Amino acid sequence: MNGVWQRRVAREAARRALAEDLAGFGDLAGAVFTEEARAQVVARESGVLSGRLAFEEAAGLVDENIAVRFERRDGERFVSSDVLARLVGPASSILALERTGLNFVGRLSGVATMTARFVAETEGTRARIAATRKTTPGLRALEKMAVVHGGGVPHRFGLFDAAMIKDNHIRAAGGVAVAVAAVRAAAGHIHGLEVEVDDLDQLEDALAAGANVVLLDNMDLAHISAAVARVAGRAVVEVSGGVTLERVREIAATGVDVISAGALTTRSPWVDIALDLEA
Amino acid sequence: MNGVWQRRVAREAARRALAEDLAGFGDLAGAVFTEEARAQVVARESGVLSGRLAFEEAAGLVDENIAVRFERRDGERFVSSDVLARLVGPASSILALERTGLNFVGRLSGVATMTARFVAETEGTRARIAATRKTTPGLRALEKMAVVHGGGVPHRFGLFDAAMIKDNHIRAAGGVAVAVAAVRAAAGHIHGLEVEVDDLDQLEDALAAGANVVLLDNMDLAHISAAVARVAGRAVVEVSGGVTLERVREIAATGVDVISAGALTTRSPWVDIALDLEA
Amino acid sequence: MNGVWQRRVAREAARRALAEDLAGFGDLAGAVFTEEARAQVVARESGVLSGRLAFEEAAGLVDENIAVRFERRDGERFVSSDVLARLVGPASSILALERTGLNFVGRLSGVATMTARFVAETEGTRARIAATRKTTPGLRALEKMAVVHGGGVPHRFGLFDAAMIKDNHIRAAGGVAVAVAAVRAAAGHIHGLEVEVDDLDQLEDALAAGANVVLLDNMDLAHISAAVARVAGRAVVEVSGGVTLERVREIAATGVDVISAGALTTRSPWVDIALDLEA
Amino acid sequence: MNGVWQRRVAREAARRALAEDLAGFGDLAGAVFTEEARAQVVARESGVLSGRLAFEEAAGLVDENIAVRFERRDGERFVSSDVLARLVGPASSILALERTGLNFVGRLSGVATMTARFVAETEGTRARIAATRKTTPGLRALEKMAVVHGGGVPHRFGLFDAAMIKDNHIRAAGGVAVAVAAVRAAAGHIHGLEVEVDDLDQLEDALAAGANVVLLDNMDLAHISAAVARVAGRAVVEVSGGVTLERVREIAATGVDVISAGALTTRSPWVDIALDLEA
Amino acid sequence: MNGVWQRRVAREAARRALAEDLAGFGDLAGAVFTEEARAQVVARESGVLSGRLAFEEAAGLVDENIAVRFERRDGERFVSSDVLARLVGPASSILALERTGLNFVGRLSGVATMTARFVAETEGTRARIAATRKTTPGLRALEKMAVVHGGGVPHRFGLFDAAMIKDNHIRAAGGVAVAVAAVRAAAGHIHGLEVEVDDLDQLEDALAAGANVVLLDNMDLAHISAAVARVAGRAVVEVSGGVTLERVREIAATGVDVISAGALTTRSPWVDIALDLEA
Amino acid sequence: MNGVWQRRVAREAARRALAEDLAGFGDLAGAVFTEEARAQVVARESGVLSGRLAFEEAAGLVDENIAVRFERRDGERFVSSDVLARLVGPASSILALERTGLNFVGRLSGVATMTARFVAETEGTRARIAATRKTTPGLRALEKMAVVHGGGVPHRFGLFDAAMIKDNHIRAAGGVAVAVAAVRAAAGHIHGLEVEVDDLDQLEDALAAGANVVLLDNMDLAHISAAVARVAGRAVVEVSGGVTLERVREIAATGVDVISAGALTTRSPWVDIALDLEA
Repeated sequence: MNGVWQRRVAREAARRALAEDLAGFGDLAGAVFTEEARAQVVARESGVLSGRLAFEEAAGLVDENIAVRFERRDGERFVSSDVLARLVGPASSILALERTGLNFVGRLSGVATMTARFVAETEGTRARIAATRKTTPGLRALEKMAVVHGGGVPHRFGLFDAAMIKDNHIRAAGGVAVAVAAVRAAAGHIHGLEVEVDDLDQLEDALAAGANVVLLDNMDLAHISAAVARVAGRAVVEVSGGVTLERVREIAATGVDVISAGALTTRSPWVDIALDLEA
Repeated sequence: MNGVWQRRVAREAARRALAEDLAGFGDLAGAVFTEEARAQVVARESGVLSGRLAFEEAAGLVDENIAVRFERRDGERFVSSDVLARLVGPASSILALERTGLNFVGRLSGVATMTARFVAETEGTRARIAATRKTTPGLRALEKMAVVHGGGVPHRFGLFDAAMIKDNHIRAAGGVAVAVAAVRAAAGHIHGLEVEVDDLDQLEDALAAGANVVLLDNMDLAHISAAVARVAGRAVVEVSGGVTLERVREIAATGVDVISAGALTTRSPWVDIALDLEA
Repeated sequence: MNGVWQRRVAREAARRALAEDLAGFGDLAGAVFTEEARAQVVARESGVLSGRLAFEEAAGLVDENIAVRFERRDGERFVSSDVLARLVGPASSILALERTGLNFVGRLSGVATMTARFVAETEGTRARIAATRKTTPGLRALEKMAVVHGGGVPHRFGLFDAAMIKDNHIRAAGGVAVAVAAVRAAAGHIHGLEVEVDDLDQLEDALAAGANVVLLDNMDLAHISAAVARVAGRAVVEVSGGVTLERVREIAATGVDVISAGALTTRSPWVDIALDLEA
Repeated sequence: MNGVWQRRVAREAARRALAEDLAGFGDLAGAVFTEEARAQVVARESGVLSGRLAFEEAAGLVDENIAVRFERRDGERFVSSDVLARLVGPASSILALERTGLNFVGRLSGVATMTARFVAETEGTRARIAATRKTTPGLRALEKMAVVHGGGVPHRFGLFDAAMIKDNHIRAAGGVAVAVAAVRAAAGHIHGLEVEVDDLDQLEDALAAGANVVLLDNMDLAHISAAVARVAGRAVVEVSGGVTLERVREIAATGVDVISAGALTTRSPWVDIALDLEA
Repeated sequence: MNGVWQRRVAREAARRALAEDLAGFGDLAGAVFTEEARAQVVARESGVLSGRLAFEEAAGLVDENIAVRFERRDGERFVSSDVLARLVGPASSILALERTGLNFVGRLSGVATMTARFVAETEGTRARIAATRKTTPGLRALEKMAVVHGGGVPHRFGLFDAAMIKDNHIRAAGGVAVAVAAVRAAAGHIHGLEVEVDDLDQLEDALAAGANVVLLDNMDLAHISAAVARVAGRAVVEVSGGVTLERVREIAATGVDVISAGALTTRSPWVDIALDLEA
Repeated sequence: MNGVWQRRVAREAARRALAEDLAGFGDLAGAVFTEEARAQVVARESGVLSGRLAFEEAAGLVDENIAVRFERRDGERFVSSDVLARLVGPASSILALERTGLNFVGRLSGVATMTARFVAETEGTRARIAATRKTTPGLRALEKMAVVHGGGVPHRFGLFDAAMIKDNHIRAAGGVAVAVAAVRAAAGHIHGLEVEVDDLDQLEDALAAGANVVLLDNMDLAHISAAVARVAGRAVVEVSGGVTLERVREIAATGVDVISAGALTTRSPWVDIALDLEA
């Protein structure tokens, strides 16, 4: 994603999120405090930043008179008490922005921070840490970006930008070769195609059928190593299923190319980040 | 929220979530498998269900030919291996629904399950466990519902349906009485008004100013108990700030009416729930 | 509502209104007159201004090259022949704006002007004049603002920002206390709650049940006075039902806090305001 | 407008209006009363019905389990105490519908009723009573329909479906003939074209230039009669400007074809219509 | 259409078109090339330009940092190798714009170019070449504009801005006079009304009924000439049906006012226009 | 695309197209003819059908009381005078549907018919005929489907579902290998990646860099044959540039896998299809 596209996506997410906080009469409490104010976005614990674009776009949508200057870029580390951003503008507008803006950076920095921990565990290996489609409904683009900010890779976006053939498809088709042929015929010649395999026989079938990527699902380490050897560069090798911080290093050590982990988005607590108005 | 309203909200969330998975050519892999199939939504760990409405609405939006029958209602407990729902319909449609539907029940059951743990800790006390506005951007209504499914209460929805006067407002106004008067004048006579207080002096000011609810922010147990005694039923007493599963019981024991906890939504891992197509 | 929020609401209303006048080929008659022009918005009768924001936003949406300078603020009085605003811009754009812009200020100034008459009648009393939800479909926010411009208060916005328990609810529940308890349990602890009462018995029940506001519906003056005495500051007292310009002063004299009148929006003729292009 | 189109327009208006009453948690008070109920829409004064479609569509949008049966069609007269419609459905849903539904029939019946008074005044003449574009922003289609329900005609919808050349256009062009030629060239050969004239000279120019309709603006009766004689069937003759119930009959008596009156929509009080839940 | 309205229409079309090329992760290939670049829009064959506004609006929507300077206006002729526009901006943004922008100018210049050929064939006659409603779904406004750029006239936009009574209507009504009366009564006095006639009898009926325009459908030259003579200026005369480049001149020579041709939009190949990034 | 997804896409296109024909008062002429009618969609020339879904969805959106029964499926051939579909419903609704429905089947059958001609020319070869992104703005999904109905393949949908590296990218990066590496790193491991090559050296680079598809751009037959031999199954081979009906067979004879042709959508006249109401 280039920056212009990211910003557009962030703006739409910010628009929807603001609509959750501002309806009817708008902000019942804050609207009367219209004087100019200064505020800081401050970390209450350490982490990796993500969500800056959404915060900035939310600010612009609340009131174009809010000036926001971030002190960190998305993907940068911070520790507790670090000032992440400074704001100047009408107090009423900053108060209207506060919760929505913080919800973005709190949640998304949580994803980036968890990703960074997985990436740190696999340092020195060829394995990249990848996101899955287990993302909070409505927030996929931003959570995929957060994984990139944490050092990971985004994988496919949805069902439409690459074909993944899983157990269910194979069973329905009656075998790997048939499934791949059917999907390839329908999906066209240009789309990436990944095949999930459970054992080495299926692996051979997948390679023979022209899979671009093979997904080793819930295999033990011995089988993963054997599979990597068997593929021998003929396809990208991805591992998925039960990937935890504790196990990820030994999986990476087998020489696989990609490790995808739902935990990046499903087990990542928010990073505690607050907004303080200056006295 | 009555059921009709909840369903409408769930449908909109489902529509947006499906748009993340289905664009361009739709499902590149699953579209060719058009035969009728059966599937089960199965729990891989125990928890409290939430997200049923969004799952059902997503199914209807993908294909009205999918029949979904849930075996549990939102708010009901389940354990690992329990079948939560059964589906019949075109395999292609069930495959298109799978990830979006699961993301709703996985995330929202996570919130309900965490809430239920807080509620269990406070059993026998008068304290209700309440949600905050720390909700995933775009998912507030469903996450507030999930808190209710877990046994909690929803609190205000956003800035528009009740006025909460916090430190920043008090500082800007120069005191509790002035802040309340200004907000009350602007917000009108009918909206609920809550005042955050740091000590017993502010508490008296808030009560005198006509606060409907007082929020004791980050107070220790002794001060909370003293505050409860001082209020003596003149207002609803709420506690917030640093509320964890470990501390919540002793807070509840002080006799407060409401304990609001960001952790319900910011520290709650997803519940692992899968969809299995039948062979 | 703070100014930024009001402007956003006005812009959306302007967008929808312009779409009623401009579709297909746009303005069939005015489009050919592209030369620069000057115009004035002129009052043809006296009144209180409202609708300025919507007029300005409509101008910006038609053509950002239209410069609008209002000579009056919303809430200010004017008399016939007063110039309310001056415009400079392409004649074609001013002609495209004319009717939509005038419809806003004509209708909304009508509401503000009628409100100001009610407010003038109650001068010197503690009673505030409040809007109801009897607003033109699609124009609620702007009509509520117009009431404020006329000196009134907005009351609740809709069904979602405060709970009002009326005859029907009480009958369905089997009594005031039961109705309030049921609504309070569902609505949560923070939302404002108003109870409509027909007599002094119901009034006591409502106060005992913790109503924040009591609504005396269609009571005669003697009963209103008695109710005010009975409440004695324990709740806000509102009167509604059959409130006319002729009766409002004597109602206010009873010492009630709020008088809500549907007539502000249902019996208020437009103020005649025109746009004149300069020769 | 045929019925299918009218219904679609009404549905969109209903959707927007409901969004004003239902946001956040929906109906805070009514949601708990989910039992089946019966209700009646009852007239509190006499009038001509309009707004039935919008009421029905609003009901369907709130809850498809509400059954609505109208006892009157749009355009029919009713007197005080007449039952206009009967409803059966969940009480919570009827309560959520109540205000929105009534706002449509109250406002639109007000327009239809005022129109019917103008039409009654001109009975026996060839003059038709026509709406103008002075309609409440966002409600034009329904208010134009309401004029038809009252016995009037809708005139053009907006700037896009017929060309009207007024003073300002003529002045900008330097004369009637030039203005008509310019507009005709730009607007194309098929669109209706009306020219506003102040005197008999301009009238002749307009007829010569091929106007389909001539608008006599603010002329006295003598001039109107002279103009009708001069036109002699070469164009449709319309009168506008300062048309009141008091004056409309004498204007109609001159033999004009159409009399358009802003008062239909700008001076028409709502008809008082209520919804009563049955005990 | 004035320029401001055209631009708004073009922006909406550009927004929809860009959404076809940019979803999910946006541009997978071009996003990495963020350096500044220059590019030219170059004609690969001769034609008449149309689509400039949509190209410009698409550029602005992709990235406001793209500067576009067109060297031709809509309606101007160009030959192969002519530079039509020059762009400066981030390469990634220009690459994201390329196909969408070119699709507009390629398709719309095709329509303008075909129209110009019809117009050239009828030079020296009084006949204007008109568009029909046979336009690509979703692109009507821009294709109607393209016809104007090619020297033609737009005709009506849709079913709503003028009434055309065709064979089917006449048959349903039982005759021309009845059909016109019914439509005139429903449509109101101001809308343009065109009647399709097959022979001279129907022609007389249409004129007698007050048709503003008569459409001679699929008549041979002799009948067209006779019809023109019969009308004698009492209505605009339009010919349609089987109008080809080969036949259009002889039709025009009969003295008709308007010739409408579906071929302008249904038989017009795109003009080949490319975008070249400078080395 | 599975059928459910196609139908959803068609419905959105139909909604937008209908909005071009129906605004303001809807259909000015047809609305009065509300009696039941029968109609046929009849081919006026031979072709291959496409657009059925959009026609059906448009019918449903106009009026659910229109019953449509198609006599041909998308992709089936027809000849002049064939009845393609039969309709029963209110005449007013069929008249409102007519032009919009026909515009879909006329345009899209044009694309399918042209595709079928290309496919017929390449019969017996391994080459598939593929669509490009040269599609009418706003109609891409339906035009890609039309290519499939004509026997072709859809290629990528937009910039987001596969990465295509062209001359401009290679020049910007300084070579094929660098360009592919940069795009692969940004786009992730799963997306399909195609590289455009001008000569055999670039071809080798592309294969070495791991291209899934190579695009031979504007090569002569000898070079295409050499390239096919060189690739030897290591990648899919696609040809593009200047592909005409005259040349396509000899290109296909070289053994390439895919031939993409802009002419399918840019040089395809509409098929003449009409709707006749029965007497």
